[in-house]
Amino acid sequence: MKYKVGSDLVYTIDQPSTFIFNVQVVRNDFQKIIAEELQLDPQIDFDELTIDDNGNRYVRLVAPVGKLKVNYQATVDLSHFLIDRKTIAEVPPAELPMETFQYLYPSRYCQSDMLFGLVQSEFNDLEPGYSRVAAICDWIYDKVTYLSGSSDSQTSAYETAMQRAGVCRDFAHLGVGFCRALNIPARFVSVYAYQLEPQDFHAVFEAYLGDRWYLFDATRLAPKEGFIRVGTGRDAADVSVATIFGSVNLETMNIFVDRVSEEKSSVNTDEAIALA
Amino acid sequence: MKYKVGSDLVYTIDQPSTFIFNVQVVRNDFQKIIAEELQLDPQIDFDELTIDDNGNRYVRLVAPVGKLKVNYQATVDLSHFLIDRKTIAEVPPAELPMETFQYLYPSRYCQSDMLFGLVQSEFNDLEPGYSRVAAICDWIYDKVTYLSGSSDSQTSAYETAMQRAGVCRDFAHLGVGFCRALNIPARFVSVYAYQLEPQDFHAVFEAYLGDRWYLFDATRLAPKEGFIRVGTGRDAADVSVATIFGSVNLETMNIFVDRVSEEKSSVNTDEAIALA
Amino acid sequence: MKYKVGSDLVYTIDQPSTFIFNVQVVRNDFQKIIAEELQLDPQIDFDELTIDDNGNRYVRLVAPVGKLKVNYQATVDLSHFLIDRKTIAEVPPAELPMETFQYLYPSRYCQSDMLFGLVQSEFNDLEPGYSRVAAICDWIYDKVTYLSGSSDSQTSAYETAMQRAGVCRDFAHLGVGFCRALNIPARFVSVYAYQLEPQDFHAVFEAYLGDRWYLFDATRLAPKEGFIRVGTGRDAADVSVATIFGSVNLETMNIFVDRVSEEKSSVNTDEAIALA
Amino acid sequence: MKYKVGSDLVYTIDQPSTFIFNVQVVRNDFQKIIAEELQLDPQIDFDELTIDDNGNRYVRLVAPVGKLKVNYQATVDLSHFLIDRKTIAEVPPAELPMETFQYLYPSRYCQSDMLFGLVQSEFNDLEPGYSRVAAICDWIYDKVTYLSGSSDSQTSAYETAMQRAGVCRDFAHLGVGFCRALNIPARFVSVYAYQLEPQDFHAVFEAYLGDRWYLFDATRLAPKEGFIRVGTGRDAADVSVATIFGSVNLETMNIFVDRVSEEKSSVNTDEAIALA
Repeated sequence: MKYKVGSDLVYTIDQPSTFIFNVQVVRNDFQKIIAEELQLDPQIDFDELTIDDNGNRYVRLVAPVGKLKVNYQATVDLSHFLIDRKTIAEVPPAELPMETFQYLYPSRYCQSDMLFGLVQSEFNDLEPGYSRVAAICDWIYDKVTYLSGSSDSQTSAYETAMQRAGVCRDFAHLGVGFCRALNIPARFVSVYAYQLEPQDFHAVFEAYLGDRWYLFDATRLAPKEGFIRVGTGRDAADVSVATIFGSVNLETMNIFVDRVSEEKSSVNTDEAIALA
Repeated sequence: MKYKVGSDLVYTIDQPSTFIFNVQVVRNDFQKIIAEELQLDPQIDFDELTIDDNGNRYVRLVAPVGKLKVNYQATVDLSHFLIDRKTIAEVPPAELPMETFQYLYPSRYCQSDMLFGLVQSEFNDLEPGYSRVAAICDWIYDKVTYLSGSSDSQTSAYETAMQRAGVCRDFAHLGVGFCRALNIPARFVSVYAYQLEPQDFHAVFEAYLGDRWYLFDATRLAPKEGFIRVGTGRDAADVSVATIFGSVNLETMNIFVDRVSEEKSSVNTDEAIALA
Repeated sequence: MKYKVGSDLVYTIDQPSTFIFNVQVVRNDFQKIIAEELQLDPQIDFDELTIDDNGNRYVRLVAPVGKLKVNYQATVDLSHFLIDRKTIAEVPPAELPMETFQYLYPSRYCQSDMLFGLVQSEFNDLEPGYSRVAAICDWIYDKVTYLSGSSDSQTSAYETAMQRAGVCRDFAHLGVGFCRALNIPARFVSVYAYQLEPQDFHAVFEAYLGDRWYLFDATRLAPKEGFIRVGTGRDAADVSVATIFGSVNLETMNIFVDRVSEEKSSVNTDEAIALA
Repeated sequence: MKYKVGSDLVYTIDQPSTFIFNVQVVRNDFQKIIAEELQLDPQIDFDELTIDDNGNRYVRLVAPVGKLKVNYQATVDLSHFLIDRKTIAEVPPAELPMETFQYLYPSRYCQSDMLFGLVQSEFNDLEPGYSRVAAICDWIYDKVTYLSGSSDSQTSAYETAMQRAGVCRDFAHLGVGFCRALNIPARFVSVYAYQLEPQDFHAVFEAYLGDRWYLFDATRLAPKEGFIRVGTGRDAADVSVATIFGSVNLETMNIFVDRVSEEKSSVNTDEAIALA
């Protein structure tokens, strides 16, 4: 399934400032990049870094005073791993790939050690497996209100569990935190999301079950088969769209995600979907 | 119904230290004190203060180095206000006695302003009235584990809502905080409790409904008709058994509560009970 | 010294809403009210309550849909207790009036129990007395930036100590919390403040030293001899300008404080000032 | 300089439990392992993992019910990079190696985003460079009391900054958090420490300055030239001595660190020391 995605960011810069952008799509077996373009205006030099572990791609630049426009476009061919949800089991710690352990540990916004009591009380008695993570997503969807402006960059899963309001980032943090408190490795994923309304960068999460990372989205705002991976990390701290050192205003941000292929998605409701 | 209650506290004191005790039972129309005795060993002078608002009784003394024994005993004749729970309504803020407003505001251990999201999500749709506060108690009983040592003097309702473990003090703070977040005045009450096992000072709460303060105890550890009021406050900060300024060790604390009357309690399960 | 003070509040009300206002000046030996007027538009009925303990005056009303204008004006004759700061000692807990103890306990926004470590580290070695509370004010003034919009209604002293930014309410909470952690009773005071720029309700604090409550203001935004007391409480929870139950917007709020007397203030810089 | 180090851990296991140990020393150009031995009793199978990024070595095993003894010993030849502290500058974000950015982001126990206000107030005006990180260590040493038992596994830098008490792990978290809030990459390092009294695993931190990671230890409990690296991570979550899934008691833990070489250390007090 082919998608064309893009982001258009415009900043006003008061003093020379360093940016680290994470807006480019990840390149791997599930996401083949057919075409891609990154344009800066003014045309300034930048560093690029791709992280081996998770394929995250970062661009660093120092912007001079004035306007900075960042335009990124890519055409991506997505493929997924699909499987009957019922067949997917949780993996005991003794059998987890050791590379997944970093996603078991608590992180800044997913303090799983502090969510343990709540998780024991709400989810411990549920049948282990894909269905338990699905139940976590249902709990979040039912109990937490999606409310623009209800949280900020310091809001963590611990607070969201109490405030019962947040945005996609908070929903993802809560999902990650709850899974880790059950010893299920979980990680934060930023994506371009087809059919998201209004368009924006979206945040979802992955849980390691069976032998791979499955996609989950407690917001239900867009179909999972339309997610194009941008960043993978322990939580939002790792995959900020833009980490900025300096005095800067974001003027506009426009995101688009179009489906290029004519075919329709063929994911059944009883199938789990993986993009890794 | 007559009860004989008492407490026996023994401290070791390393340097002259000031104590403020709140162990004496409140004297009012619902609690007639038939006999009472407070003994100190050594026999040192003390100040006494009774707070007009709520009848709390405090004893202040400066203890010299060595051992301090505090022995308190009282015989109390309790009477209650009983009424069918179904008849008890919540009171809109416009009609609340203005004296109750201090029990609507957030306090150190009952941060109702921070519990608002949780309370909206869990209790807002319930039918208002006594039954809603009863449902809050059920929620606490079902979701929070009574676990000795799981909390400390800094633990607040906000933390208990997440940890899902606590002792009577934490259960009471949670009940108070939840009520206040629904605009129901609620206050913390320390009591001697008949049939509490093991014996100790107990903490429960009162909510203002209809035209008075009704007793609630989310721990279900002892019958409400056997509570003898010691202290009433916004939260545990107001009614500590002993506030101590100095270097002191509590060696032993023994509490007893005996029923003196032969009659049996006659509270029906569908009756609400008030001690004020 | 005579002052004329007033507040003008205009709200838009979406549904019938209950208000509790605390805008009237306290009437006592230090504040004689020469003239006073409270006007509501529309002219609706209201309840009035004066709290015995601290003289706080509350007005409760139910406002219908539409606009609500609240206009309050008073002419007040202020007198102060002045004394050389050097003569003012801290009072050991054994000698404090027992009525002051409620202001030693931690409260929602002044969690003195959680400030103990910081206070020990920063202020414990200072000479006890008025000068230590003055040093606390200097510390706050030096280390905390007064920044409009840097805090909200949930911000407490604990957070302000870390954020190092706040408004007058946060400066007062910090002062109160620090004093209590040193066993100095301290309370939150809302005032009309002469020469405050821009005009607004102001928040300051009082510490109990020697034999009375002395005024402190870590913001240094206005002279202490021009404070006219509106509310006294454990913290801002007790003396909110308006506690509102309903759906309401504050359209405008105008405060004025004029000096009526011709005389100039005669407080020396080495004098402490008390308004109680 | 050669050291012989070792750890002896004895657990009682109530039910089959999974352990992940991080007790082995890192092998790199600065730490040559001359001899090494890991013994388990009972002799059970284990997995080993070495993380490419930082050389952390993990051992995973499933222990049966009963006793588990883990004995590790290694002889290590340490070499350091030494340089005059005055020559070491901070690196602007535009010039930092991109691999260091993960150590700029806030983590579970080092919430640098929440330490920003404190850091601005206390350290922003200091001259940038090695000396500023040294000043951070002095601040921590002066203001925070090293107190066994004053913190637990959930204590973070944010709390330690207020409690002003902690153990080596807390001192390291605070150092890391403060540096990151100044845009200095910083990471948590667990070590065997020569001359530490009493012997234990020790926690220190590294800050990225000039062109490498320099060692810092705000506790001053042992000389930096005697640190042998075990684990490197964002904070303690990454390098726990033992992550345990199951019901287990630690019976005894003994650590030893002996110097094998006869030579004496030759680090001057004005030299910075790097082990990476």
